[in-house]
Amino acid sequence: MSEVYAARRARLRDQCTAAGSAAAVVSRPANVRYLCGEVPPGAVLLLGPVQDVLVAADVPFPSPLPSSLPPRPEEPRLLVLPGADRDPAVAAADLAAADGADSLAVEEHDLTVARHRALGAAAPRVRLADLGRAVEQLRIVKDDEEIACMRIAGELADQALGELLESILVGRTERHLALELERRLVDHGADGPAFPTVVAAGPHAGRPGHLPTDRRVEEGDFLTICLGADYRGYRCQVGRTFVIGPSPADWQVELYDVVFAAQRAGREALVPGRAYRDVDRVTRQVLDAAGYKDALEPCTGHGVGLEIQEDPRLTPSAMGKLDACVPVTVEPGVHLPGRGGVRIDDTLVVRPEADGGPELLTITTKELLAL
Amino acid sequence: MSEVYAARRARLRDQCTAAGSAAAVVSRPANVRYLCGEVPPGAVLLLGPVQDVLVAADVPFPSPLPSSLPPRPEEPRLLVLPGADRDPAVAAADLAAADGADSLAVEEHDLTVARHRALGAAAPRVRLADLGRAVEQLRIVKDDEEIACMRIAGELADQALGELLESILVGRTERHLALELERRLVDHGADGPAFPTVVAAGPHAGRPGHLPTDRRVEEGDFLTICLGADYRGYRCQVGRTFVIGPSPADWQVELYDVVFAAQRAGREALVPGRAYRDVDRVTRQVLDAAGYKDALEPCTGHGVGLEIQEDPRLTPSAMGKLDACVPVTVEPGVHLPGRGGVRIDDTLVVRPEADGGPELLTITTKELLAL
Repeated sequence: MSEVYAARRARLRDQCTAAGSAAAVVSRPANVRYLCGEVPPGAVLLLGPVQDVLVAADVPFPSPLPSSLPPRPEEPRLLVLPGADRDPAVAAADLAAADGADSLAVEEHDLTVARHRALGAAAPRVRLADLGRAVEQLRIVKDDEEIACMRIAGELADQALGELLESILVGRTERHLALELERRLVDHGADGPAFPTVVAAGPHAGRPGHLPTDRRVEEGDFLTICLGADYRGYRCQVGRTFVIGPSPADWQVELYDVVFAAQRAGREALVPGRAYRDVDRVTRQVLDAAGYKDALEPCTGHGVGLEIQEDPRLTPSAMGKLDACVPVTVEPGVHLPGRGGVRIDDTLVVRPEADGGPELLTITTKELLAL
Repeated sequence: MSEVYAARRARLRDQCTAAGSAAAVVSRPANVRYLCGEVPPGAVLLLGPVQDVLVAADVPFPSPLPSSLPPRPEEPRLLVLPGADRDPAVAAADLAAADGADSLAVEEHDLTVARHRALGAAAPRVRLADLGRAVEQLRIVKDDEEIACMRIAGELADQALGELLESILVGRTERHLALELERRLVDHGADGPAFPTVVAAGPHAGRPGHLPTDRRVEEGDFLTICLGADYRGYRCQVGRTFVIGPSPADWQVELYDVVFAAQRAGREALVPGRAYRDVDRVTRQVLDAAGYKDALEPCTGHGVGLEIQEDPRLTPSAMGKLDACVPVTVEPGVHLPGRGGVRIDDTLVVRPEADGGPELLTITTKELLAL
């Protein structure tokens, strides 16, 4: 793997050099992981003028620190700071200055004002520039290795959900169902849930990001479940809505059909070259046309990978176009206050028509199940 | 409760006025919660020149938004921004400017450089100042309400740990034990774990912040478990180390006795007026004297409340003195690479001698149990 990280760092270095920065400090955790693999919490990466250094505070780290092995040539040197009081980003700026860097690009969307000031004070003769979201941009298109991890994450989530559906749901609380799902994820080999599991029953159903409560599942409820697995740092998201009881009510069937149609429209719009906002629009239009304009959320999908929400965002104001090998979610939903609602979430990888179109990573059925 | 929040905001407002700021934007989540109670994720508080406003993005929020009720006079007005694209902190600065504020104190240790810049651009005629850690300082001494929540959090953690110890441990993985503990916490009424539960077996034992792995518990292991409950936002931490099997080895008994003695010394040093660094020193001395200088961590305890690690920190370089009604952890540990180690963590509230000395919130026995 370490050649992969070295290649990613090389791409970033080229961008920095082109932008006139001799060195860069990457501090956003998901970005550091993308460029170095699994690292100690809080570690920052110095892309230095003469050397790359991974700077970490002296905090515990589950796996033995890379420093205990002789680093491979492609790997950055690991520097573990004594004590927990020193900010690794400040120490990295120190190093860059010592190595003769006259300019240093930092992640201004990650560093706090206070850390940025400390960094400037530590390296007063170094000009600080903004690296911006350069690493986030590199992360948008995934390689086969990354997609393979996300595929496994999807399987783990489908598996946990499928098992839960075979058990009795009526009378159990949202909280317990969420915990059971997270236990099953880990049982099957996930490193953990990709985000707090959503279990939303009755009037809660269809609310995005609903946090589980002590509400018990009852006959006649809509039940929305949304979960994801974290596998080697890579995430996925699957959301489904079910009806509890022998058969759904008419309003439930109608609402479900509308959201399903919207979600399918979004999935079918996942074509390389398609504008982000178009994907959002075709999804939204179906719900608008059915009269759910007011029930809509600002976002109908988003990129996913090392973070559960990353670039691109599928919104009316998003700029940019889909590329091949970009994993995104398509997750329209409608929530009717007091009555509940429907959400259907999938994680898919954008693929050209010639390769069979979008690859669905979350294959749990989307027909309306009455449980 | 809302009178309590109003009083806290009044104290902060006085400090801001004294420091020459007409208004303040509080953005750090735990600080916003301290000043307003439970609020939507990402919400920021504007302490305005004419009005207090809680500004939130239009994101889902489990409980119905306060805005749906008429606000009590003591409560800040709630402003929910349309769409998820607008930064509540920027909107708050807007409002402050519109209300005629000429200066605005912000949390420079929380705002990123990018957000701070956007804030300045939104209110170009407002002078931005640094609120610093003013709210964190207010949070150090807890009131009875807060301590009552932490007491319950401690009981929940003790209960979950006690139940686990009655079950079979040998052959189960760290991961499964951690999940079971977290499930029990929630079963008993916790809002969730206070931090990722630590289960560290064999060579992992004694490592602070160890993340559970697939290592199975074996005869002869040291087993370190560290967990905490979140009850209404307030947290606690309890850590214990056990021996697996009929009887501990001599080296295990010796190591345990040393760490126990160090932890007791730290607990006994929790007296109002005692310097933070003294508490750290008396704990550290015991381990130093026993020859474990190199095995020591930078911090032997810390404040706890709405966050699991807050001010004060008990370190050799910490400045300041303990007050009454300050909850802290005392958590020395020794980890011997390859062999394992011992940690013993308690959460206590500093009380004067006259009130019976430090109040122990985590009462699980600290005698060395062979399980």
